[in-house]
Amino acid sequence: MTFSHSIGLVGATGAVGRKFLQVLNEQGIVPKSLRLFASEKSKGSKIAFQGKEYTVEAVNESDFSGLQVVFFSAGTEISQEYCPKVAKAGAIVIDNSNAFRADPEVPLVVPEVNPNALKKHKGLISNPNCSTIQMLVAIAPIHRINPIKRIVVSTYQSVSGTGIEAIEILEKQTKATLAHEKPPAGVYPHQIGFNLFPHIDIFLKNGLCREEEKMINETRKILEDTNIAICPTTVRVPIFYCHSEAVNLELSKPFELSQVRELLSKSPGIKMMDDPNNNVYPTPLQCQDKDDVFIGRLRRDESLSNGLNMWVVSDNLRRGAASNGVFIYQRLVQDKMI
Amino acid sequence: MTFSHSIGLVGATGAVGRKFLQVLNEQGIVPKSLRLFASEKSKGSKIAFQGKEYTVEAVNESDFSGLQVVFFSAGTEISQEYCPKVAKAGAIVIDNSNAFRADPEVPLVVPEVNPNALKKHKGLISNPNCSTIQMLVAIAPIHRINPIKRIVVSTYQSVSGTGIEAIEILEKQTKATLAHEKPPAGVYPHQIGFNLFPHIDIFLKNGLCREEEKMINETRKILEDTNIAICPTTVRVPIFYCHSEAVNLELSKPFELSQVRELLSKSPGIKMMDDPNNNVYPTPLQCQDKDDVFIGRLRRDESLSNGLNMWVVSDNLRRGAASNGVFIYQRLVQDKMI
Repeated sequence: MTFSHSIGLVGATGAVGRKFLQVLNEQGIVPKSLRLFASEKSKGSKIAFQGKEYTVEAVNESDFSGLQVVFFSAGTEISQEYCPKVAKAGAIVIDNSNAFRADPEVPLVVPEVNPNALKKHKGLISNPNCSTIQMLVAIAPIHRINPIKRIVVSTYQSVSGTGIEAIEILEKQTKATLAHEKPPAGVYPHQIGFNLFPHIDIFLKNGLCREEEKMINETRKILEDTNIAICPTTVRVPIFYCHSEAVNLELSKPFELSQVRELLSKSPGIKMMDDPNNNVYPTPLQCQDKDDVFIGRLRRDESLSNGLNMWVVSDNLRRGAASNGVFIYQRLVQDKMI
Repeated sequence: MTFSHSIGLVGATGAVGRKFLQVLNEQGIVPKSLRLFASEKSKGSKIAFQGKEYTVEAVNESDFSGLQVVFFSAGTEISQEYCPKVAKAGAIVIDNSNAFRADPEVPLVVPEVNPNALKKHKGLISNPNCSTIQMLVAIAPIHRINPIKRIVVSTYQSVSGTGIEAIEILEKQTKATLAHEKPPAGVYPHQIGFNLFPHIDIFLKNGLCREEEKMINETRKILEDTNIAICPTTVRVPIFYCHSEAVNLELSKPFELSQVRELLSKSPGIKMMDDPNNNVYPTPLQCQDKDDVFIGRLRRDESLSNGLNMWVVSDNLRRGAASNGVFIYQRLVQDKMI
């Protein structure tokens, strides 16, 4: 299998962009050629990759012809404008933004969950939202053998999902608080240093924030199940990396807890960390910079006939963004679609 | 109404003990006499209260006769040993520990929720667990008119619930992380600075941690409803003060959201902070050092016929501990039971 293609990366200077380069390198992918794009203000900056220095190009001035695969991670507006152009120029676009996820013509793919959806692509493939990806890697193996009727999920999401400026403001606000100084405002409507809030992305008319609506709609699209009921509360917490999720499932049929445990431990992309009596369960610090979805606190929910609880942690920049994109690319190669 | 009684406070040097003194003073309660108790190692230390200096007595060397009301907040073992002795010596004991909460002879009271339970007391009254108190203040008004069938709750609990040493370790680990030094270990099995974990109190054989079992058992006892189904996941987060809770309710009957909103805004002990489009919802920093239970993100849960979601934040040391104890005392006086 050869991974030698002409690769482009839009949003190369962002938090996810940097992870894309790290993951490509770790996966042993040596591009035939590589072009890095960002906004005009980053034009001309240098980024090293595999012993070579690359100059960042401004996305709005570029000609995209000759590229075979282009990863986008530069925000919804940039994707809306440029993904179709890049796809038209001949590349397969793997877009990390929200721009095309709801589009029925665009596959929304977690490679371990719905790889077959890739077959319908028309040049554009969407990477799901970070909190959706890790939840689906964890629950899809169960859903396949014992359909999930309802999900109640509360998230504990790190600031890196917002970007580099959010990582910086968490650091600054935390330092100021510890120094008994007034923390600087910025990035979020409330202080995030030693604080948290149930507000991710904008609020919609229905009272949900868009992150919550994403979890509902994307889960249904990826599982190809419009009936699955989902009730999310998405919360930003003062953590740098990794999202955690308290997931409660109502299954259709009775189950043996030991069988669910065995199933999950054999499922791709999952690592069980589940020995609470020895303080073993995943925490954000332990899961940082890894590609697996970590599951702990697997336990029966006695408040329901077929209830199941789990605690799911994963690196939002990697598994929830860059690595999922790279895995899509690898799957395309593996299935000879590129 | 007179609040002039001989008051004792066991655990006076702890995080909750200090709050007890602050709340007594704020409520305008001038004790006839005050005695402060702690462990032997704090014996002889001085604590100022209402312009007077008090010397801390060792609880194990003390004679408790003459006291009328004694607040305990010194851990379960101290309560187990000394609460019965103090009650026998003639005082009404208001115990903040887990020691007697499950005892059918001991009322477990949130004054806004089940004040009548006080009437059955035999010298000993239990203060519920912090995460239970704030949830019950928020949901009891609804339960009275539209019985709750099932609760799924995920918590975001501050370190102050563990005590002063946990506040210190969060500060130290955070400082070390920001300085790129190795954070010191301590208090918790995992680092809490820039980290979080679904582990509060010890783990039980059923896979729950005891904090989760407390929320189940205490809710049932306080609401006098053994059928109510409760599924909690309790999580420690890197926050100094206040617990937050994502609460999902399945009600028995259909409801109008506007009516629930009106009901809650008129209920004692509750403050609505619910205007998400203007970024208004409670956060720990905003609710610190207040006695109310703050509710935001009140919204219908569309995944269920009679589903309701809310976000509940309150100061765990005050509303969840000291203030609830003081409110019990005030209620006893008001009902002429002391």
